[in-house]
Amino acid sequence: MRVLGIDPGLQVTGYALVQAQGVRVSVVEAGVVRTDERRPLAERLRRVYNALRDIVRELTPDAIAVEELYSHYGHPVTAILMGHARGMIFLVAAEADVPVVSYGATRVKKALTGEGRASKAQVQRMVQSTLRLTELPQPPDVADALAVALCHANVIARGAWQGHGRTKQI
Amino acid sequence: MRVLGIDPGLQVTGYALVQAQGVRVSVVEAGVVRTDERRPLAERLRRVYNALRDIVRELTPDAIAVEELYSHYGHPVTAILMGHARGMIFLVAAEADVPVVSYGATRVKKALTGEGRASKAQVQRMVQSTLRLTELPQPPDVADALAVALCHANVIARGAWQGHGRTKQI
Repeated sequence: MRVLGIDPGLQVTGYALVQAQGVRVSVVEAGVVRTDERRPLAERLRRVYNALRDIVRELTPDAIAVEELYSHYGHPVTAILMGHARGMIFLVAAEADVPVVSYGATRVKKALTGEGRASKAQVQRMVQSTLRLTELPQPPDVADALAVALCHANVIARGAWQGHGRTKQI
Repeated sequence: MRVLGIDPGLQVTGYALVQAQGVRVSVVEAGVVRTDERRPLAERLRRVYNALRDIVRELTPDAIAVEELYSHYGHPVTAILMGHARGMIFLVAAEADVPVVSYGATRVKKALTGEGRASKAQVQRMVQSTLRLTELPQPPDVADALAVALCHANVIARGAWQGHGRTKQI
């Protein structure tokens, strides 16, 4: 099972492909897609779209995992611009016929640390130890992409995945 | 000059192509793209993307006009989902190499009615009379798409367009 976690952003989109075999999970590839803030929005979004499309083609994930939308973002305009980039994930997924699964932040933290209110640092340390990485994943966008990918891999490994359609996929 | 106004939404996206010749402006085509809220988000966004791509191919606009992002949206999650759909406009525009221009709501109202704080009803009546329509444009998404298209046509006609690049295009 290959899970591609993605943490979308207009400026920086983190991605990470993890491969799960039973309870053993390893990183196949992780990185970021950056866009130049001096370029027009249309061009930046095309860059995100093209990069994600290439990543999905090359890494052939079985599923894409993202964080659910929630209400506590920062500035509304920034959040909506993140939404522009996040939309590219869903378009790429639809075109590649790869299912998208989404998990709330609390669910991700709980899956990784056993505690839904874990700090970001605790989550990062669990990502590091689970994947036997010598360093903390950097930048945070990659760590977040790894965390949501591991969350889905964990849910799959426990046989707890209910499939899509159970809840609205946002 | 052919201007395609678009009012993005995950559920309903309004669009309207207006043709401007000097100060005379007419509607070439207007309509909406609807998505089925029971379908997965990925599928809905692909529908918006495909529909907008086809519209741009068929209607060959010289420019696409949208409302600028502003801070006073309703529920944050709804606003971010609108952002997912709005992102499709910019991607389609980049792929078709059509410039996107954005105008604040106040600017649109002022261009149409001379008054930045005009009511929605006043704006709709001006859209109707400018375009010599026998009825008010419906649904509101079409009226909004027509309004932003007319705003850009008006700015062009007055020779007041400063090109892109002057301000950040959001």
